[in-house]
Amino acid sequence: MFERYERLAKQLGVDHPVLLAPMDLVADGKLAAAVTKAGGFGLIGGGYGNEAWLREQFAAADGARVGVGFITWSLSRQPHLLDVAIEHAPAAIMFSFGDASAHIGKTKQAGILAICQVQTAAMAREAVDSGADIVVAQGAEGGGHGVACGTISLVPAVVDAVGDRVPVVAAGGIADGRGFAAALALGASGILMGTRFYASEEANGDGEAKRRIVECKGGEETVRGILFDIVRNNVWPAPYTGRVLRNAFSQKWAGRERELLQQLHIEHSRYMEARATRQYDMAAVIAGESAALVSEVLPAGTIVANVVREMDAILGYTSYKARRAPSASI
Amino acid sequence: MFERYERLAKQLGVDHPVLLAPMDLVADGKLAAAVTKAGGFGLIGGGYGNEAWLREQFAAADGARVGVGFITWSLSRQPHLLDVAIEHAPAAIMFSFGDASAHIGKTKQAGILAICQVQTAAMAREAVDSGADIVVAQGAEGGGHGVACGTISLVPAVVDAVGDRVPVVAAGGIADGRGFAAALALGASGILMGTRFYASEEANGDGEAKRRIVECKGGEETVRGILFDIVRNNVWPAPYTGRVLRNAFSQKWAGRERELLQQLHIEHSRYMEARATRQYDMAAVIAGESAALVSEVLPAGTIVANVVREMDAILGYTSYKARRAPSASI
Repeated sequence: MFERYERLAKQLGVDHPVLLAPMDLVADGKLAAAVTKAGGFGLIGGGYGNEAWLREQFAAADGARVGVGFITWSLSRQPHLLDVAIEHAPAAIMFSFGDASAHIGKTKQAGILAICQVQTAAMAREAVDSGADIVVAQGAEGGGHGVACGTISLVPAVVDAVGDRVPVVAAGGIADGRGFAAALALGASGILMGTRFYASEEANGDGEAKRRIVECKGGEETVRGILFDIVRNNVWPAPYTGRVLRNAFSQKWAGRERELLQQLHIEHSRYMEARATRQYDMAAVIAGESAALVSEVLPAGTIVANVVREMDAILGYTSYKARRAPSASI
Repeated sequence: MFERYERLAKQLGVDHPVLLAPMDLVADGKLAAAVTKAGGFGLIGGGYGNEAWLREQFAAADGARVGVGFITWSLSRQPHLLDVAIEHAPAAIMFSFGDASAHIGKTKQAGILAICQVQTAAMAREAVDSGADIVVAQGAEGGGHGVACGTISLVPAVVDAVGDRVPVVAAGGIADGRGFAAALALGASGILMGTRFYASEEANGDGEAKRRIVECKGGEETVRGILFDIVRNNVWPAPYTGRVLRNAFSQKWAGRERELLQQLHIEHSRYMEARATRQYDMAAVIAGESAALVSEVLPAGTIVANVVREMDAILGYTSYKARRAPSASI
């Protein structure tokens, strides 16, 4: 399995196939650069698309080998942002949530890797048929938007569907070297982590939000749904829902989506005010089930080093390299 | 990690810590015995509790070293069934879904291992505090009843909570050696599989139901909910919901639980008729997301041999044993 590991690392031009999830706003240029400097691969969160912010983050990445990720259905409404991204010559552009086929060709013609995030094996086939170089299989444990299948069945199903054509990266529920090792055992070539990097010193997130991720003791303290999308006037196309930490707001409105829609004239402004003033009993902290495994805010470089060291202790990557070295020198 | 593996195998008195999920009716004495004869550990599905059926299945197991599993909240309504089970001296009794503390003491006093299935780290702590010898951490990918956390985050969280006191078995979404290897990497000592064994030759399930498991191409073709419990007049206590294969019935009633309750006088008898006549467009096939990884009905013994061989190819169990053998002979 380390052949796969090293092949993907080489393709990305880094030491370890440990990818930063391009979290909207949270994964800024500084965080992406920190992940890359530690041997992983940083991806700036292009999110819904904001040209000024995007230019600032590429500047902040300061020449580090990074990529950028977009929310595909949103990018498709302002496709010129793909040109802005290409202009900065990222190593990869990642497309999540929607049909990326209109963007992949242009990306690859510019010599940039096209990464597609998918949530089913059928979506993986479509992405690879459209030219994706790398597929991220995202399980339902993940924070933020996604669909419904758990990582431990999804990853091997995606590997069976497209693993003979492109590398598969596992995402959703992974925050330490045990998850990294499990992902490799499942047939993945690498991992992508969001929540773990949200709780990093460099992440562009509020300290109180990071503290709540650290405090989360189990996946049952998160919830997948659309309440936070409804209240911020940002409902996504089906089948996407989003995972957030449970809070007083999500408890209050659980199962009452239509009532919330009817109260939006009151609740929307209250929510936006809560978000602006960092009141996380109302505003959502977007995080996944792996928050259960995050017990402290760490520098991004330490996070990369830890997951590689822990994975090595489980699977023996160091001894694999040692065994291979003599024959390579013949 | 193979120290853990062998310790659990020894505790269960078998070669490999590959457990059969005690699926109600499907995991009968014949299937449980077949799993044990192949080196795994078979558990008869005691289900809601039916004394005559239970006695028949112990007889059918014909002296093989098997266990039995109960739905705890149902067993608590007819506790004499625990005595019936103990009378047959199973190697282990497994308690799932509810507070097992009233049953664990009696089980252990009879020299029988008490296994508790849990769905959160908090439940794992309660089970071990109540005396559980082994904990099964069941992720939301699993078929039948369960809760909400995905296996890849849940297992390490449960290991962190109780792994220093008892072995943790991973369940939910595992159907091949990749999932087995992943579970061991996550810190589990073994695995428990339901869906994979449902699609075995020995399982007490209808051929058409098994065929539908084989045909299932992805976790998105399953759904977690309570529709099938509502329509069979068997709604479980919160927080339990159940995963089944999607079919015309689950699609028709999706999101209309209350309407189904109002139509129960019509729909219940239609459903029971469909179940009796094996009409699986209406009757639920209870199966998990790992159905995506099941491509043929196999003998149970072949299933055990396959997952062990595939796990070995990934993690090198054979070479671990070879390395250890010389020092053991000193």
